[in-house]
Amino acid sequence: MPGQSVGVVQAQHFHFAQPLTLRSGTTLPAYDLAVETYGSLNAAKSNAILVCHALSGHHHLAGHYADQPDNLGWWDNIVGPGRPLDTDRYFIVGVNNLGGCHGSTGPTTLNPATGKPWGADFPIVAVSDWVETQARLADLFGIDAWAAVMGGSLGGMQALRWTISHPQRVRNALIIASAPKLTAQNIAFNDVARQAILTDPEFHGGHYYEYGVRPVRGLKLARMLGHITYLSDDQMGEKFGRELRHDRFTFNYDVQFEVESYLRYQGDKFAGYFDANTYLLMTKALDYFDPARLDNGNFVQAMARAHPQTNFFVASFSTDWRFSPARSREIVAALLANGRQVSYAEIDLNFGHDSFLMEDAYYHALVDAFLRNITL
Amino acid sequence: MPGQSVGVVQAQHFHFAQPLTLRSGTTLPAYDLAVETYGSLNAAKSNAILVCHALSGHHHLAGHYADQPDNLGWWDNIVGPGRPLDTDRYFIVGVNNLGGCHGSTGPTTLNPATGKPWGADFPIVAVSDWVETQARLADLFGIDAWAAVMGGSLGGMQALRWTISHPQRVRNALIIASAPKLTAQNIAFNDVARQAILTDPEFHGGHYYEYGVRPVRGLKLARMLGHITYLSDDQMGEKFGRELRHDRFTFNYDVQFEVESYLRYQGDKFAGYFDANTYLLMTKALDYFDPARLDNGNFVQAMARAHPQTNFFVASFSTDWRFSPARSREIVAALLANGRQVSYAEIDLNFGHDSFLMEDAYYHALVDAFLRNITL
Repeated sequence: MPGQSVGVVQAQHFHFAQPLTLRSGTTLPAYDLAVETYGSLNAAKSNAILVCHALSGHHHLAGHYADQPDNLGWWDNIVGPGRPLDTDRYFIVGVNNLGGCHGSTGPTTLNPATGKPWGADFPIVAVSDWVETQARLADLFGIDAWAAVMGGSLGGMQALRWTISHPQRVRNALIIASAPKLTAQNIAFNDVARQAILTDPEFHGGHYYEYGVRPVRGLKLARMLGHITYLSDDQMGEKFGRELRHDRFTFNYDVQFEVESYLRYQGDKFAGYFDANTYLLMTKALDYFDPARLDNGNFVQAMARAHPQTNFFVASFSTDWRFSPARSREIVAALLANGRQVSYAEIDLNFGHDSFLMEDAYYHALVDAFLRNITL
Repeated sequence: MPGQSVGVVQAQHFHFAQPLTLRSGTTLPAYDLAVETYGSLNAAKSNAILVCHALSGHHHLAGHYADQPDNLGWWDNIVGPGRPLDTDRYFIVGVNNLGGCHGSTGPTTLNPATGKPWGADFPIVAVSDWVETQARLADLFGIDAWAAVMGGSLGGMQALRWTISHPQRVRNALIIASAPKLTAQNIAFNDVARQAILTDPEFHGGHYYEYGVRPVRGLKLARMLGHITYLSDDQMGEKFGRELRHDRFTFNYDVQFEVESYLRYQGDKFAGYFDANTYLLMTKALDYFDPARLDNGNFVQAMARAHPQTNFFVASFSTDWRFSPARSREIVAALLANGRQVSYAEIDLNFGHDSFLMEDAYYHALVDAFLRNITL
């Protein structure tokens, strides 16, 4: 891998005492955000890049904690000295989104009104709400405009939303493996995942913390299903094919094929650490995202709100069937219809939707080239 | 719809007292099959067509029962006087597969050894086992060779297996929306569905009958997931798009989008009547199907077992991503490599995998033309 890791990092926690009225109409009196930063903010505060996370991500983008050398950040391969998100040049910011379960205020944290975990009482948040919390974080750092806002999948939706919520504050936007809104099929997969959690008897209406249990069965199913949709059919075929776990058909319901073993393992691992209420609200943020609603469904008109000087980088992956290249081209078309500057890449990578997380020389060179062109 | 329905029909039940050793090695001492037939068997017994069902199907192909006028057979649109499976010309046979839950011996019927329902003790059956039970049914009718064996999806796998298990007894085989074996992705979807059922606390290790409950939550999830994979992305988009159930975002976990309402309704309906143990074993039959195993993975060699005089009709649907046209072309290629007679059609229909069940003039005309060429 070219470049270096950022090495040992530390999370920070910021308290925001100003009330926040959410898209749903609910007002949060205050909240905390867990944040990590890498590199140094320059004197002009013009070199900051915000990296937004997807469904199961968080603020720990890069490097590792002193006491957890194996806990590498989820996008470590792209962040560091000499890497595309070059910490010698940029000040990189990762945030755990509001409603998350990695240190920011969310269902697992205490509701000051009750002294108990928020659980299902934590309000459903929208992508636009996240953008507001990130804007307040920028204020706190004294950053007037991000050099770039960047994200993949649900993270890309946040980058897109930034350009129309705060057009003056985004000089460049990198929207990767994303979509202007979910399709009916996307929503349907999300709803199956939610139903798996909501109908788990250990969900207890979202207040499982008080019962000393967790809806691990439902969360495991949700993750197994999600995982299938993040991978490509071809990749699963190459990786697992019909390989058997043992060398013969067993004619029972234990693991028979390697792919079952892999999926169940992934499901168990995820259900072991992720919070089910956070999973639910993240999927709702995905479902609800639809900036064209600002303009009666006219996405071209919605994107006219982007600043004429904002440069866009849009990328998609050939084998991504969850957010297919066609969905990225919708974004590109709306930008071009508004005469906006946009670079678009459709990248041949075999990892389905997960491609955006992968280290690939061509993909990373494109990101690198785009970012090197930014004048600080 | 051209042609007519067969009108009022009656199911028959046949008892088979000869033990059957299954692919798994287990021996069933005896079993019953629920069967429906339409039209008349001719004197030469040369006009019989066996129609094999898919995962959730059964023997009730066509017509309705006298006391259930709305309970139309699942493939009524193709069976009847003047329809492609013309009952003026053919004797059509539908069977509920062994292990089913519509009258044939299966998990819901009594295990003579215990006097209780078989439940999870019912052995997992393979496609080749079904072919054996169907061969014995043919014996009972005195049918030496089927004019045709036909099926879609898992039903197509049975038709395919017939041509290599009993090559002399299949004069024509119609293999529709099927595949020579499942992909890793197919298996993965099946395993998520199974895990939903197996981990439902009301599954009780498959012996839920004794507890007066049913794993309806798991079965509903399995069906919702299955349903997404039977439809095409485009069709879901056209049918539901992002239509809201109510006219505004509600920011809770009730039904928000129409597609959620539809899926949950389909899941509830199915979970209300279908048996979870049957669902499990049907998905395993799908996973295990792989006739190339007879020849160390060489599918071309496996298909060499088909009779040189057997004519094949293979069809796939452009929007079927569960069993894509590429999978049907694998079957065609293996047949052509063996110099077998094969007609292949790739049909543009917008209903995904479910297309094979739909009434479409072009599709039905192709089936009709193929069947009219059969010399009785």
